[in-house]
Parts: sequence; structure tokens; C-alpha cells
Amino acid sequence: MSIPVLDRTAQTEHPVLDVLADRWSPRAFDAETPIDEAKLASALEAARWSPSANNSQPWRFVVARRGSALHHGIHSALMGFNQAWAGNAAVLIVAVAETATEDGTPVHYANYDLGQAVAHLSVQAHHDGLVVHQMGGFDREAIRPLLGLDERFAPVSVIALGELGDVDALPEPLAQREVAPRVRRSIDETVLLSA
Amino acid sequence: MSIPVLDRTAQTEHPVLDVLADRWSPRAFDAETPIDEAKLASALEAARWSPSANNSQPWRFVVARRGSALHHGIHSALMGFNQAWAGNAAVLIVAVAETATEDGTPVHYANYDLGQAVAHLSVQAHHDGLVVHQMGGFDREAIRPLLGLDERFAPVSVIALGELGDVDALPEPLAQREVAPRVRRSIDETVLLSA
Repeated sequence: MSIPVLDRTAQTEHPVLDVLADRWSPRAFDAETPIDEAKLASALEAARWSPSANNSQPWRFVVARRGSALHHGIHSALMGFNQAWAGNAAVLIVAVAETATEDGTPVHYANYDLGQAVAHLSVQAHHDGLVVHQMGGFDREAIRPLLGLDERFAPVSVIALGELGDVDALPEPLAQREVAPRVRRSIDETVLLSA
Repeated sequence: MSIPVLDRTAQTEHPVLDVLADRWSPRAFDAETPIDEAKLASALEAARWSPSANNSQPWRFVVARRGSALHHGIHSALMGFNQAWAGNAAVLIVAVAETATEDGTPVHYANYDLGQAVAHLSVQAHHDGLVVHQMGGFDREAIRPLLGLDERFAPVSVIALGELGDVDALPEPLAQREVAPRVRRSIDETVLLSA
């Protein structure tokens, strides 16, 4: 099978930064190249400087490099199609929300602010030539014991991070999805009210 | 009172994009300059191309320009210190999460993905010379009737967007906070486990 090369740049109605227009979530990860540790550090640093409600910073990360038992364990907890491709990623990161403070107070913006931090991580990684694909489909009960998390922390997403791989190496249905154009709802439908 | 000029660039341990290192959340907004509509459109476009679980795009926005009844209403619903400064912002945007689909299915990643979209919006706006300050402190019951939202939509944050104003125009306690250095937990404390 030969997959056509596709320009994944978003068809934007208004100009945006290249790193935002070009960013996408591939499934074809390079299975050989180890992670560039400097780029990984910059990605985490980008997350670090994300904004949060009252600067609460309710994000934590578990970082697993390919070949480690932790990477294997996280990969094993992925569900459905994610199993078929995400194991190739040089790094699997579990994004963890601090859902309550040490004294038990709920952190209402934990998921929202975790999302912001992961967005910053993704933008930095993409700028540095890495690719990112976030997954919500994983077995939370299977992942929790691997991470030894306190009750107040919740694993929210698993982030595949690494270099882009060969689309031809993906199983057929995934390869077809890989080359589909990026689509989004229009701005007009997203803005409910404008005054 | 004279406020010293402060370089707000983050003291990063590892290099990150300038737009991420420089971004911060001011309270001093220019109260005169109308929003640059092209920059506002680019900020919303950046949010549009954010990633989301199964491309569900569970974000909506309500956009209110200074001088409109909607801007006035949103400003009136802000709580605490936010009242004192946010009314100056050229635009107040209510970030809204789609918490359930039309058939009532819960959208588990609504807040997380809304956070990502707002992060993209913020990065684009900052790149374009605007500033952004997100607020969680507002009266949800007061805001809801202004927006005419269906039950399945939840207002999550209010985003002040506009040009940077004069710190000296802020009330004293806010002016002092405005020039405090940006601080974050270290990466070592944020990464719970690394393998």
C-alpha cells in the first residue's frame, strides 16, 4: 500500500501561528529513535509555565520511555485501536490532574488547567519537530497501580510523544485515517453569541 | 505611585518558545483601544484548531466587546477583585463547555478540551501583541440568563482579552500583584515518576 503525502496544515479562515496551523495528532510514530531528552525537557517546561486558576498548577506527569517496564505497562492499559500504534512512541506520558488539595478541598479547574498545560506541552513539542497524540481511551483501574497515585490524583489522558514514523507501517484502517484532512466546526457555529 | 518595569519572561530551566515564556496574565488592560477584529478572529481560529477527544470540539464562546450590554452584563457577574479591572478589557469572552451531546451522552473531556482550546487562543493572542487573563470567579447563575445557554452547556471561565494598559491605573493592591515575578513549581516536583 502506498499512502499519498498530504499537507496537514489546517485550512484556516484567519491566519494563525504556523505551529498551531501545522500541529496534528498522528498515529504513525517512529519506533526506533530514542527521545531527544532536551526536547522532552522543553515540552515539560512549556507545560510548567501554563496559566492556572490562582496559579494552582493542578497538573502532574508520569514520563515513561520506550523499553521501560513503565512504558510497557502504560501501553498495555491502552484500549482499542490505541494499542495498535501507541507502543511505538518514544515516550508515553500520563497526564494527571490534582483533583483535590492536600486538605481535601476540590480543585474545580483541575481538568481545564491540565488541558491547558498539555496544550502548551504539545505546542512546544511540535515546534521542536516532535509529534503528540493524546488519548482518553485507557483502563484507569489498570493504570492506577502502576503510578502509585494518591487518591486525590486522577490519570486523565495518555500522551504519545516522539518522532513521526512511516504511515505505511500502520495497519490499514489506521493508515486511511492518518491521511484524512483535518476538519473542524466553523467559527460561526462555535461563537454562540457576539456583541 | 510609580511601578517599576519588570521583565515578565519566565525564568525557564529549559528553553521554550518566546510566546510561551513571555505570556502572562495581566490585570492592567487598556480601557480605550477597541479590539483589533483581525486579531480577535485569529485568536478564535487558533482555538478552533485545538485537538479534542474524538475531535468532539466541546468548546463554545460568547464574545462581548466593551460598550455592549453583553460586556456590561458579564462584567457585572464577575466576583471579587475581578470587578475592579476586567471591565477595561476590550473583549470579555465566556468560555463554554459542551458537557453533554444532543442525545444526552456526557462529554467527559469537555473541561479538559476547553482548557486546551483557550490555551491555543491565548498563545495566538499573545503572539499578536494582545494580553489574556482568564477568570474562574464569576456568578454562574447571573451569567447563564445573559447567554441563553441550553442546559448541556456550562460557562467555565471568563477571558479578558485586549491590549496591555498602564499598571499605575490599577488600585494599589492589584498593582503590587501585577509586578510580582511569575513563579511555578519545579519540574522535579511535577514529574511524579520518570522511567
